[in-house]
Amino acid sequence: MKKLESVSYKNVKLTGGFWKKWQETVALNTVNAVYEQFAASGRISAMTHTWREGEENRPHIFYDSDIAKWMEGAAYILQYVKNPELEDKVDAIVNLIEDGMSSEGYFNSYYQTIEPANRWTNRINHELYCAGHLMEASVAYYEVTGKRKFLDLMCRYADYIEEIFIQTEGAKFFTPGHEEIELALVKLYKATGEERYLALSKHFIDVRGTREEMMFDFFKNHPTYAQDQNPVREQQSAEGHVVRYTYLFSGAADIAKEYGDTELLEACERTFDEAVRNKMYITGGMGNMKHGEAFGPAYFLPNFEAYTETCASIGFMFLAKRILNMDPDSRFADHLELQMYNGALAGISLDGNSFFYENPLEQKPTDLEFFHRVGANGRPASRVRLFSCSCCPPNILRLIASLGDYYYSTDGKCTIYTHLYSANRAEIKLGEKKIVLTQSTHYPEDGRVTIRITAKDPVKATLAFRIPGWCKNATVTCGGKSPDRIEKGYAYFDGEWKTGDKVELNFRMDVRIMEADPRVYADCGKVALMRGPMVYCLEEADNGQSLGDIRISAKPGFKVKYEPELLSGVTTITFRGSRRDGDFGGALYREYNPVRKEETEFKAVPYYAWNNRGEGELAVWILR
Amino acid sequence: MKKLESVSYKNVKLTGGFWKKWQETVALNTVNAVYEQFAASGRISAMTHTWREGEENRPHIFYDSDIAKWMEGAAYILQYVKNPELEDKVDAIVNLIEDGMSSEGYFNSYYQTIEPANRWTNRINHELYCAGHLMEASVAYYEVTGKRKFLDLMCRYADYIEEIFIQTEGAKFFTPGHEEIELALVKLYKATGEERYLALSKHFIDVRGTREEMMFDFFKNHPTYAQDQNPVREQQSAEGHVVRYTYLFSGAADIAKEYGDTELLEACERTFDEAVRNKMYITGGMGNMKHGEAFGPAYFLPNFEAYTETCASIGFMFLAKRILNMDPDSRFADHLELQMYNGALAGISLDGNSFFYENPLEQKPTDLEFFHRVGANGRPASRVRLFSCSCCPPNILRLIASLGDYYYSTDGKCTIYTHLYSANRAEIKLGEKKIVLTQSTHYPEDGRVTIRITAKDPVKATLAFRIPGWCKNATVTCGGKSPDRIEKGYAYFDGEWKTGDKVELNFRMDVRIMEADPRVYADCGKVALMRGPMVYCLEEADNGQSLGDIRISAKPGFKVKYEPELLSGVTTITFRGSRRDGDFGGALYREYNPVRKEETEFKAVPYYAWNNRGEGELAVWILR
Repeated sequence: MKKLESVSYKNVKLTGGFWKKWQETVALNTVNAVYEQFAASGRISAMTHTWREGEENRPHIFYDSDIAKWMEGAAYILQYVKNPELEDKVDAIVNLIEDGMSSEGYFNSYYQTIEPANRWTNRINHELYCAGHLMEASVAYYEVTGKRKFLDLMCRYADYIEEIFIQTEGAKFFTPGHEEIELALVKLYKATGEERYLALSKHFIDVRGTREEMMFDFFKNHPTYAQDQNPVREQQSAEGHVVRYTYLFSGAADIAKEYGDTELLEACERTFDEAVRNKMYITGGMGNMKHGEAFGPAYFLPNFEAYTETCASIGFMFLAKRILNMDPDSRFADHLELQMYNGALAGISLDGNSFFYENPLEQKPTDLEFFHRVGANGRPASRVRLFSCSCCPPNILRLIASLGDYYYSTDGKCTIYTHLYSANRAEIKLGEKKIVLTQSTHYPEDGRVTIRITAKDPVKATLAFRIPGWCKNATVTCGGKSPDRIEKGYAYFDGEWKTGDKVELNFRMDVRIMEADPRVYADCGKVALMRGPMVYCLEEADNGQSLGDIRISAKPGFKVKYEPELLSGVTTITFRGSRRDGDFGGALYREYNPVRKEETEFKAVPYYAWNNRGEGELAVWILR
Repeated sequence: MKKLESVSYKNVKLTGGFWKKWQETVALNTVNAVYEQFAASGRISAMTHTWREGEENRPHIFYDSDIAKWMEGAAYILQYVKNPELEDKVDAIVNLIEDGMSSEGYFNSYYQTIEPANRWTNRINHELYCAGHLMEASVAYYEVTGKRKFLDLMCRYADYIEEIFIQTEGAKFFTPGHEEIELALVKLYKATGEERYLALSKHFIDVRGTREEMMFDFFKNHPTYAQDQNPVREQQSAEGHVVRYTYLFSGAADIAKEYGDTELLEACERTFDEAVRNKMYITGGMGNMKHGEAFGPAYFLPNFEAYTETCASIGFMFLAKRILNMDPDSRFADHLELQMYNGALAGISLDGNSFFYENPLEQKPTDLEFFHRVGANGRPASRVRLFSCSCCPPNILRLIASLGDYYYSTDGKCTIYTHLYSANRAEIKLGEKKIVLTQSTHYPEDGRVTIRITAKDPVKATLAFRIPGWCKNATVTCGGKSPDRIEKGYAYFDGEWKTGDKVELNFRMDVRIMEADPRVYADCGKVALMRGPMVYCLEEADNGQSLGDIRISAKPGFKVKYEPELLSGVTTITFRGSRRDGDFGGALYREYNPVRKEETEFKAVPYYAWNNRGEGELAVWILR
């Protein structure tokens, strides 16, 4: 097991292109849009604990976590944008937390306002989940601003939780109904050096699945819902509520690395691989069963009914990133990249102001209108500003604002891994020395990347570069030389690096026609288009209605074109295809007519950018 | 508007072949199997009104209707099978009803046992629905046995309902939450000649959609659920709970005919056509939205998620039969036939002992096992003996036992319509004369039908024979002569008919490859096989797993074969097709490989016969 650390977002500056633009969008728009919605919906005032029965905006058990994720996102933004007003807003909330915290160190706006006597009695009610998110936020805010107040408050909270869950066993349950605190405690430990927090995190991981605990009615009390079916180390497959799964195993991965626990790492990899192999939409979307927002049966991947929560994709990024630091295998970085360009990014509008919770792969707005009318499916047909359970908006905010965290890993001594590509500049310490890596590239529009080295003194190091799994003809050279070795999808160069050295990478971005395993009935007879890390889709805006009937030609004649004016700038794929003649004489069925209409051109756009031109049909999978 | 009457099941004897076998099955097995389940589940003892809180089998508001449908089925069976024991069972229940009926004439086992003070207060609670089914049963039992007691009891009940709903307006609602009594009252009127029952039925039709009435919460109080969105005559489309729709419009069709109300007939045809054109599965299955067991959006026809209730198909037969008697257009008889061989018949196992409520067009049992485990989808993977809401088993029982009712219509004077084909003998009165039609045929295995005439004296009459819409090259001749005219899909012969005359019909049963409208995304890129009136399907038992990946060849080389030992005797269709090579190297997605495996043969069986060889995969739609 390797024990790499991700190079912090504090040391990786996105300098241009795709993700720089996104970081600007979330800093200029998203952080304000989410704040306004949270303020207007009573989420912030809930933290004053003054709400009374009969008033509007009854505090919900999730509310503190929504605010916490927003605070965390705001903190990351303050790292790359000066914004005193934003910082004031965060400070004001920190003050509310300080004011509201009980003498023991407890803070939960729902319980303290509504059920003060029932603290720690209901496993379902997200207390530890909210606490965990507050802890994550406090660590980020401390890292960026150096202000300790929030961090100190959260240490008090963590101390109190340790007392309840380890020393006195004073709660009516043993492990959180919604995991999150496990990974948060590891962050708190790293920020403070306080090992008790690490031990408490390990405790939650160790205890899970070993005791009789409260189950979840609506999942028929099946223990998989909250990953209670086995001790974590023995779990064989990814089960239950997807976000819960990803948060639990992200925490488990942290514990695996901190304690060198290979059994735990194996459980992380085993269940991660199982999900990716059996239950993942091609977009990275996870949650193939709406019931319980959960993993469904293997190969059951309905495109309209996809319950592919934005947070689930983000959670999988948390997990993949952590595994990668113990096992630098490109399949985990490939997954990171798939989620960031597709499953996760589809959750936010191009202007950064509205959000999807579910990210389907097929849609007809008229179907949804019908369902809404009669209460059959609540999914909005377009992105919205707020959900009653509004976890996804601040989650995508904090993800994008902290994206620098995902590019590089290092052992801090002599090895640096480059996982992702896009214009950025990273300062990385190796022992006492520092090396700067600067990526120049138009990635993801183009697969050519130049990485220049700057080092005050020559640095002896191994530099490893991920070769994307989607690229069948990559070239990676350094001064004309091939890599010393290629291992698990990374190209390794050993050497002494000095200013002026550069590594040239070229990942040819051909259009790829993809197909799904024959057991995925929803996609049989169909293909999807990808280019580089991006999944493409057909939209009504480009292709009219009845997208489901478009068949891509055996000779599609792909034309790839960057269109700067379209959807804030996207590379489109045009292909030849055909439709059926739709004259059914007023009937729904007729005898099959094999003759199709003459071929015409259709245009596909990146999936993440869909639904930014009004409501319309969507199709990722295309008949072949 | 024509005013034909269906020739009664009492005068149409099925004499051999497909449906005779089914009538024997329901007489030998189904009627006993359903009775046993109903007795064991407390449905019969509920009628004693002695159940007390805390006991097992709490009477449900549906229970009387379940028993009533069983009684009605039993009555029809007694028409063609002597079974004194069965008759005794019916009489015993009639006695329970007599004993339990209140002095006003009220009988409802749920209300009289559980909520005696709340009679007529809750529109949702099926009181009038249960009453209607009891009335239908009483009419059938009177027609077959001549015993009046049950009929007289139900007249008292109808009198009481008239008092409440017309004279005193003593109920908290105006029209039934679940329609059924409308059509039942017309039957009661016809059996007794009592015009008040007809008027009461018309009243319920007329009032619906004109007053503020209790709505149904779970349908977001949308009035479509129970067809309350408009007055019945103004309804434009088939909406809401499917069985409710069919029962309402069956009653409306009766009223249309009795009163010569063309506006009402137009509403029946308009909404019927709309459903068939927009929302019908190729099997006839209706209910393209599980939520509310309801009609969903047009063209939204997911095959796995099909909520195609057996009762919905049966209800559509009720409606089609009634429209046909005013407008003898073969499209209504085609629909009857489609439902009886497919959507309805799939609801019962070949041995007659177990039942489907939902009839999907695609199934993987492993998916359902998963869903059951976590409470996500309650549909059983195989037919079962009883449902908690067990309407379908006695409904398919009474349908099959009364199937003779669907074959012929007459004006009673000079015209006879033959709608359906299979070996049978019908005695039909035309004025003072009688004519006997005897069908000899192996239909539906073979499309050749001979109809022989027997008449004591020559009878001047027009005989009309339906040309099935599925047959593109039908021949219909009488003594070598072509029909005098063909109108709305019926071949008409005018003449004086005498014993020895015969009509020869030949409906070539080629295998037909069918496709769905391009807006039906679930079926794009796919075809279904039909032969004669039957829809075919692929089963795992014949073709292994991964049915969804089988692609039928452009040259399928169909082989049609009657297999007497298979599935109680079915005609199978063998075709050439291919699968994909499934080697994805452990991944869920790969770059598309256009090369398929070598073609092999696959076998399709009639859809109704599926799931009689254990649990296994099912697919109606096949890649093309």
